Amino acid sequence: MEPSSSREAFHGHLIRVEVEAWPAGEREIVRHPGACGIVALTSDGDVLLVRQTREAIRASILEIPAGILDVPGEPPAACAARELEEETGYVASDVQPLAVIHTSPGFTDETIWLFTGSAEPAGDKEHGIEVVRLPLAEAITAIQDGRITDAKTVAALLLVEGRHGR
Amino acid sequence: MEPSSSREAFHGHLIRVEVEAWPAGEREIVRHPGACGIVALTSDGDVLLVRQTREAIRASILEIPAGILDVPGEPPAACAARELEEETGYVASDVQPLAVIHTSPGFTDETIWLFTGSAEPAGDKEHGIEVVRLPLAEAITAIQDGRITDAKTVAALLLVEGRHGR
Repeated sequence: MEPSSSREAFHGHLIRVEVEAWPAGEREIVRHPGACGIVALTSDGDVLLVRQTREAIRASILEIPAGILDVPGEPPAACAARELEEETGYVASDVQPLAVIHTSPGFTDETIWLFTGSAEPAGDKEHGIEVVRLPLAEAITAIQDGRITDAKTVAALLLVEGRHGR
Repeated sequence: MEPSSSREAFHGHLIRVEVEAWPAGEREIVRHPGACGIVALTSDGDVLLVRQTREAIRASILEIPAGILDVPGEPPAACAARELEEETGYVASDVQPLAVIHTSPGFTDETIWLFTGSAEPAGDKEHGIEVVRLPLAEAITAIQDGRITDAKTVAALLLVEGRHGR
């Protein structure tokens, strides 16, 4: 599958936009470097979430620790463990693949590698990031009642719940 | 929350890109009209999926019926029922809200309204769309083994599974 023609319409620091000609018509496609995210569970069965300021939606929302794949050569699992430590101060162990998702394949190639693992408190976290520690069941309730809306977080938490049972 | 400045960097048919100045730095934001999607269950407990050609990821993938919110004034639930009928030829009844998700709030305001409902075969569907009817449990397995990767589809199917029990 390749377009018959393609032109770059925007070239930013994070994303690029290409307008491609396909048999079905013109497609406006956002190229994204991809990202990773991790559901990290403490020994008490709590999940570690962070409150992220998301200018795109003019809100601060609860998400799993995550980050852009912007370190050349770094595998997604290592990226996820690094982001967990930077954002929460917890160190991951036993990191397992959970799923690979396409956030919105109608207009972007963004792919997110999701993981799960155990978390132990360790060093310092980034300043200005609020860590929210919730029992997994309460995080699931927060999805159901609309307090958690981030797609990767919804998908990842529900997948972990499925593995651990309700 | 508003940026101190904003400029439009791309204006397409589906999306626009704005580069905004925020205290934390510059943000490249993709403005999207939003979308709807529906988990439609037949009387046998099967879920109706469609195979969509997604040029952005150079693949055809399984998704729930869905569509862009591009009819002025049409409520998301009506959009979801209309898309179900157009894409599958099934008519929805008892359409209930399931969740509202942000597909990738790090760079886009895209919001998807998810619904669930019952489906009965009715009229014609769009040409060229392949409908895949699966038992719900098999669709969940397809998420777990990586055959379903679309974020809205993963989130919606897992939420419906949670409501109906495993």
